[in-house]
Amino acid sequence: MLSALELAGRIDAGALTPRDVVEMCAAAIAERETVVGAFVTFDVDAASRIAADAAQRLVAAPLRGLPVGVKDIFDTFDFPTEYGSPIYAGNRPRADAALVALTRRTGGIVLGKTVTAELAYVHPGKTRNPRDPDRTPGVSSSGSAAAVAAGMVPLALGTQTGGSVIRPAAYCGVAGFKPSYKLMPLGGAKCFSWHLDTAGLFAATIADVAFAAAAITGRDLRVDDRDRGPPRLALVRTPAWEDASADMRAAVERAARRAEEAGATVRDLDLPPIFADALLAFSTIQGFEGFQSLAFEYDRHRDALSPVLRKLLDAGAGISVDAYDEARRVSRRARQMFADLAGDFDAILTPSAPGAAPRGLDAVGSAAFNRLWTLIGSPCVNVPGMTDASGLPLGIQVVGRFGRDHGTLSAARFVEQALADA
Amino acid sequence: MLSALELAGRIDAGALTPRDVVEMCAAAIAERETVVGAFVTFDVDAASRIAADAAQRLVAAPLRGLPVGVKDIFDTFDFPTEYGSPIYAGNRPRADAALVALTRRTGGIVLGKTVTAELAYVHPGKTRNPRDPDRTPGVSSSGSAAAVAAGMVPLALGTQTGGSVIRPAAYCGVAGFKPSYKLMPLGGAKCFSWHLDTAGLFAATIADVAFAAAAITGRDLRVDDRDRGPPRLALVRTPAWEDASADMRAAVERAARRAEEAGATVRDLDLPPIFADALLAFSTIQGFEGFQSLAFEYDRHRDALSPVLRKLLDAGAGISVDAYDEARRVSRRARQMFADLAGDFDAILTPSAPGAAPRGLDAVGSAAFNRLWTLIGSPCVNVPGMTDASGLPLGIQVVGRFGRDHGTLSAARFVEQALADA
Repeated sequence: MLSALELAGRIDAGALTPRDVVEMCAAAIAERETVVGAFVTFDVDAASRIAADAAQRLVAAPLRGLPVGVKDIFDTFDFPTEYGSPIYAGNRPRADAALVALTRRTGGIVLGKTVTAELAYVHPGKTRNPRDPDRTPGVSSSGSAAAVAAGMVPLALGTQTGGSVIRPAAYCGVAGFKPSYKLMPLGGAKCFSWHLDTAGLFAATIADVAFAAAAITGRDLRVDDRDRGPPRLALVRTPAWEDASADMRAAVERAARRAEEAGATVRDLDLPPIFADALLAFSTIQGFEGFQSLAFEYDRHRDALSPVLRKLLDAGAGISVDAYDEARRVSRRARQMFADLAGDFDAILTPSAPGAAPRGLDAVGSAAFNRLWTLIGSPCVNVPGMTDASGLPLGIQVVGRFGRDHGTLSAARFVEQALADA
Repeated sequence: MLSALELAGRIDAGALTPRDVVEMCAAAIAERETVVGAFVTFDVDAASRIAADAAQRLVAAPLRGLPVGVKDIFDTFDFPTEYGSPIYAGNRPRADAALVALTRRTGGIVLGKTVTAELAYVHPGKTRNPRDPDRTPGVSSSGSAAAVAAGMVPLALGTQTGGSVIRPAAYCGVAGFKPSYKLMPLGGAKCFSWHLDTAGLFAATIADVAFAAAAITGRDLRVDDRDRGPPRLALVRTPAWEDASADMRAAVERAARRAEEAGATVRDLDLPPIFADALLAFSTIQGFEGFQSLAFEYDRHRDALSPVLRKLLDAGAGISVDAYDEARRVSRRARQMFADLAGDFDAILTPSAPGAAPRGLDAVGSAAFNRLWTLIGSPCVNVPGMTDASGLPLGIQVVGRFGRDHGTLSAARFVEQALADA
């Protein structure tokens, strides 16, 4: 994998130019894209030209000319934007989505559009898991996670409504960061659920993803340049623990032990019953808002929707305003409850997914370990580095309190290093 | 003006068909559009065809085939969508914005796209005030307010980031409703500030706007079919009171007296000091988020932006993350403080604007009486019916607590009737 931080350092030192980095990406694409299928479209020549034309300006920018993969749920003015749906075949937006424009503003070079599940829900695209092409890369930010995992880009943009950043990051074995709700703008990204949709990032390591998030947001999020000391962690099994594989349960418990050995405090935490209600609230909000957000697609292009999305929207049509309002109240109470609990720890440890990537491209896996945190707007980080018995990646999830993005990234980096040092 | 409720009742009774209503709108457009300039584009023939082709289905739908004007900040698949900016000349989105699709889903017929100020900020379009063509209709939902005021449509969609629904409603003398933040979806509408942008509606009377809001959202918002009894009102002068004209001050105080005579309780309320901070917080949030949301336009088409927007974004570039985060905290505290205060009343009375519509199309007026309520996400209603000495509309604003949209509309209707009965 290409480390964004390392590449930025070498560009800083004059050892590499942005154009060299584009060529490194091009080489990985030439070697692996046929099998992996991370991209809907890409343009190495255009990226190379941008890197050459603006070399000086780019080197001075926070992202320093690094190539970026953009999930095809974000509008781009220079690439078609199809949202993973035949309804949008050949769609050419006039403008960049805000996050894409910010990525370019801070020096990123858009190398191409990465595969998304249909309308960022679950019906998968063509992408295969770079760690095992017979397995799913996870949805919905499939191409972004796979492109980073295959060394095709050092950085990629995604979105998460349920588990669409953390899950593919876990399955592909890369760092994934879903920041606090609304930390990064979503204007110009196709909306599914306005209380849930959150923009996120993929990179090789936690330090890389934090570096990129800091560059794009202008916030003090980097974790490579200082030491916050060992975090206070809570091990949370959540109501989904029974669905986790034996390997995954062991991995989370091992991660907790390693963190403890490295100086962290780790205690067990049982979530109060409201978090079980919150899981139901998630589905209510997603269905109700999806049925409104996708009204055009549902009402005019119903036959072009996948059966699984049609089914969700059919159900969404039947959700009452009262049920929705109650779900919103539950989600607000759960967020407040988590903030109250979080006085006693810096972040929690929990699985990123029930296990390793399932076999088959249609087996998209489960967001059971992600929905709750998306619902309450918490920052979530996938920590890569662990594997199951067969060598497939197992993702450990670090979750913090809403608005505590730097603390959450710091805790995630601590866990990542504890695992690497062990 | 065309009353949506009255037209719906006549369609119900078989006295009118949706096609007849399209023809009534067409007649008003033929008579007044040359002077008023409410529309960017409209298509009477297409609307007529839709009304005829789907007559039975439309009559059974909540909006019953009523023609609707759509602010040209919402994407439409069948009309160009230019956001009031030369950057988007000829732009043809692939899909409808969610609110447009919901409007069609519930039986509305999109008659055309109404003029918006540039990117829903303040640089005005061609629209003139139907009550006096030498005056501004108010921005940014200029065309939607003017189209309703001129009898060209019974219903129009708008958005408000500062005062872009309430102000043009006040200046044109129509009912305007900016619901609670996020009550109506904004997917597919051009984003300016994601913590402020709110979709809203225009119609002839409060009962009309409540009827339309109920139809589109599926919520129990109608105020024509029952009586909630006299509201407890608070007269709030706000820090902007000094900027209000003598006529406007007298109008608000007269409205308070009329409401009292009709049975309401009215008391004076001074806002705590945090609301002065909140006005500053508004500008910080608008500038900071605008500089991100409009990154594409600012970075690539700077010369195509109006000087006033460029100036706002130049200033936005200089707002720090810390200042923004503090502004967000202030806005959350102000919302909480308003909720605490609002235990003692159902809604507040305050001006919708400093006075009547200023002379000249470039004199777009002030949002000083609107920003605070948009910031805290409160439902706001413009109550039409009063005039200044020269007969120009003066708008009275009724503001409620976040999430209390029905109570706010009910209080607004009470005030409207008290003024009409007096």
